[in-house]
Amino acid sequence: MYHLLFDQKTRSGRRFEALCGLFALLSVIAVFIESGLGTQYHLTYDEWQLFVALEIGFTLLFTLEYILRVLCWPDPRKYVFSFWGFIDLATILPLYVLWLWPEIGVNYVFAWRAMRAIRVLRILKLLRYMPTLHTLWQAIVNARHQLILFYSFILIVMVVAGGLMYGIEGPPNGFTNLGTSVYWAVVTVTTVGYGDITPHTGPGRMVASILILIGYSVIAIPTGIITAHMTNEFQKQRNARLCPNCHKGNHDEEARFCKSCGSALPKL
Amino acid sequence: MYHLLFDQKTRSGRRFEALCGLFALLSVIAVFIESGLGTQYHLTYDEWQLFVALEIGFTLLFTLEYILRVLCWPDPRKYVFSFWGFIDLATILPLYVLWLWPEIGVNYVFAWRAMRAIRVLRILKLLRYMPTLHTLWQAIVNARHQLILFYSFILIVMVVAGGLMYGIEGPPNGFTNLGTSVYWAVVTVTTVGYGDITPHTGPGRMVASILILIGYSVIAIPTGIITAHMTNEFQKQRNARLCPNCHKGNHDEEARFCKSCGSALPKL
Amino acid sequence: MYHLLFDQKTRSGRRFEALCGLFALLSVIAVFIESGLGTQYHLTYDEWQLFVALEIGFTLLFTLEYILRVLCWPDPRKYVFSFWGFIDLATILPLYVLWLWPEIGVNYVFAWRAMRAIRVLRILKLLRYMPTLHTLWQAIVNARHQLILFYSFILIVMVVAGGLMYGIEGPPNGFTNLGTSVYWAVVTVTTVGYGDITPHTGPGRMVASILILIGYSVIAIPTGIITAHMTNEFQKQRNARLCPNCHKGNHDEEARFCKSCGSALPKL
Amino acid sequence: MYHLLFDQKTRSGRRFEALCGLFALLSVIAVFIESGLGTQYHLTYDEWQLFVALEIGFTLLFTLEYILRVLCWPDPRKYVFSFWGFIDLATILPLYVLWLWPEIGVNYVFAWRAMRAIRVLRILKLLRYMPTLHTLWQAIVNARHQLILFYSFILIVMVVAGGLMYGIEGPPNGFTNLGTSVYWAVVTVTTVGYGDITPHTGPGRMVASILILIGYSVIAIPTGIITAHMTNEFQKQRNARLCPNCHKGNHDEEARFCKSCGSALPKL
Repeated sequence: MYHLLFDQKTRSGRRFEALCGLFALLSVIAVFIESGLGTQYHLTYDEWQLFVALEIGFTLLFTLEYILRVLCWPDPRKYVFSFWGFIDLATILPLYVLWLWPEIGVNYVFAWRAMRAIRVLRILKLLRYMPTLHTLWQAIVNARHQLILFYSFILIVMVVAGGLMYGIEGPPNGFTNLGTSVYWAVVTVTTVGYGDITPHTGPGRMVASILILIGYSVIAIPTGIITAHMTNEFQKQRNARLCPNCHKGNHDEEARFCKSCGSALPKL
Repeated sequence: MYHLLFDQKTRSGRRFEALCGLFALLSVIAVFIESGLGTQYHLTYDEWQLFVALEIGFTLLFTLEYILRVLCWPDPRKYVFSFWGFIDLATILPLYVLWLWPEIGVNYVFAWRAMRAIRVLRILKLLRYMPTLHTLWQAIVNARHQLILFYSFILIVMVVAGGLMYGIEGPPNGFTNLGTSVYWAVVTVTTVGYGDITPHTGPGRMVASILILIGYSVIAIPTGIITAHMTNEFQKQRNARLCPNCHKGNHDEEARFCKSCGSALPKL
Repeated sequence: MYHLLFDQKTRSGRRFEALCGLFALLSVIAVFIESGLGTQYHLTYDEWQLFVALEIGFTLLFTLEYILRVLCWPDPRKYVFSFWGFIDLATILPLYVLWLWPEIGVNYVFAWRAMRAIRVLRILKLLRYMPTLHTLWQAIVNARHQLILFYSFILIVMVVAGGLMYGIEGPPNGFTNLGTSVYWAVVTVTTVGYGDITPHTGPGRMVASILILIGYSVIAIPTGIITAHMTNEFQKQRNARLCPNCHKGNHDEEARFCKSCGSALPKL
Repeated sequence: MYHLLFDQKTRSGRRFEALCGLFALLSVIAVFIESGLGTQYHLTYDEWQLFVALEIGFTLLFTLEYILRVLCWPDPRKYVFSFWGFIDLATILPLYVLWLWPEIGVNYVFAWRAMRAIRVLRILKLLRYMPTLHTLWQAIVNARHQLILFYSFILIVMVVAGGLMYGIEGPPNGFTNLGTSVYWAVVTVTTVGYGDITPHTGPGRMVASILILIGYSVIAIPTGIITAHMTNEFQKQRNARLCPNCHKGNHDEEARFCKSCGSALPKL
């Protein structure tokens, strides 16, 4: 039964997984429609009943899935305490919680139910087998030191800039405390720029401009790091496949014969 | 007649296509001027008449073009039910619709007429034959799995973040429903940052900052994917042209002779 | 005299050019300080006189420079009707214009004087001789077809999206005419996101989200194009320098001897 | 003692440095919590005392560290007048300054204390030994001419665009002086887009759109420059390691034996 339903190496297992992901997707769409309609129109009692019925249906389905998984897994503990075990449990709870404590705010329950989108990741998990992702992943792994250094540096720049602006602009201009100032620096350096907090004084605008220009200059660096590592990874793959006869490399990934001596190349 | 006017392999066909694109461009410019002047100044009756005359002229021209295409095409059905057939038909209709149902709102008709910009794509279609686009296209095709995975993952992150913020900030702070929250997440992760909906509470700003930093970190990934695949594609082109005499590759695309033995290279 | 002052191949010519650029820089800084102080503090008559004297000084300097250039150039017409001839003439005029027509608005004169920043480009012109720029320029030239196609496509997407939003949101929500809608689309697709005009209805937000996601997806393409062409250009340079003895390429740009046979390599 | 505590080549030195960095991190977190709580809730006297005690503790710790460094350094002057000497001194001062001049604004002291984040850079300094950063650094050094030219050009474009918009929109629309206009141009070209100052007139919006499109087009250039130089740097590293036996290069960085002849490769 485990192999039939949950082993992603079998075809039926992959299909069942896709089905679970599909139901998660449908449940998320239902939550969004309910939330959207609920705030814009006055729904009649019958219309509410439809959404309630849908929600009960999805909760029962997910509960069933959870029980099945716990029963079928060779080691149920391993599943229950895994990432997916927590996610699966957490996303079937909102309705039960609402039954037990009906005084809980409705928007918390909505938010909770929207978390089911994480379940949709199951569909992506099925696609993980595509070999192309390996290159990207290897590039990120190789670049991890550079990326960690870069992002730590940027975080410190944000904290320093936030502190500076708190001193320059201060609470009257919206920089109410250090946390808010750093929130402003995050929004600014990443070029999001909401505009809910902006510098109003001359020196503040000058510091903000300098911070923006620093952010603008460094935005090229992570892209450069990841791209260069990916290109390097492609080059490595190219060099790794050598002709068994003449020992020359640099063959395209779709090449089947050595371009120098014509012998058959090993498969990737 | 089909070869004369619509076959883009003949010179006259390309010219006619360019002429159609040019008229589309002129009609779009006319619509924009009319819309701009109409809201900023009070136009006299004569000035309006000029724009009405222009509009009738363009509609007649496009109608004529449509009839010509239907008549000349070897298989008219194939044209009528093609993408361009729909676009051509849709963009000659606004005036006829306005005649039949004059009570339709004027801004819908303006929006409809602006859709003629799609027709201008015909001019771009003429440039499609440039061989350089092949590399870009091939890179996107090769990278499609990675890109689909990436954008799906980002979409799920947006939905989850939208749900979270709906729970944390809630309707009083502008996150009126789940759809609005996800709209906010889209605007935030992509670094657009309108600022029409922003977090106001401490925890909300913290979650928003984390979401922004995630968005900032991953923005480098699609660029890396496309660039690495394009560089790889260039490398492949380089390797694909081998000297017929000494079988060495890695020649520049503008090289005409082998750099090792001097024999003539095959053309690209 | 021409060779002494304006021929950038001589050392004195480059120094004179740098001096002119430096004065332009100083004049721009003076204009900014004057404009900043003028709006924030009440300047005394004496302080104004200082700025007026500075302005007269710079105008006389630039006039002198202009006369010198016209006199020294082998063919004065060629200078006067060149790009730099126009810029030089235009940026000495504001004070003379203010003398002739004192009723002209002061902010137009300020804006005019700020244009002197273009003169600072002269300093950059001196740096143009750096050979490294050649690679970037060659990459942009090679990529021009792809870039033109890409930006034309994006412009048409902006016009179509602007038209759509004008129909969906309409004048009451800030989309006052088609031009404003396209301005909104430009601000949105490029991820600037001012937030002065934003969608307020559900369908408007949905279309805006899709437009934002399209903009987010395509932003990687121009970077990919330029980077891949630059990498290709570096590879070409690498391959172009062959060892005169063993005809092997792929030497680093700083290598002076062939890594295979040790013979001296030709200079770049 | 110097070798024991501050020589980063010894293990104990690196540990002490990490400890100092950790305390700096803790002190920054304490400042943020104090600032956040102070503005949102009314703290009791006891709670304030806790933060005051923490602050005194950190100040004493940092003072001790500073004295230790001055005493242990072989040449104390070299430390005191180095970058880190200034930072270390500056970040222990706020409490002493507050004791001497209690009338100083509390938000200046908060801002000052937040500057301790710079001390956290010490932790990053420990990671500097990672060899991978060398590639990035070398790429930036090689690309410096191109980057300087690019950013100078962008700055001049910003000044010119700011001047133009000051003339077109003027003080009534928020462009109060030339400095503010350039601040707007910086915010716009870098795609931050706060929206605190936006064009309101038709021509202003047109110029803004053109400026935005210029900014959008050139954002790809620095990324392209850095990426191409990094890829080039990787290629160089690849080529630099030649097999001592057959003199062939292009080995992967993790390869230990020549792929052509099987001899051991020199270490990186």
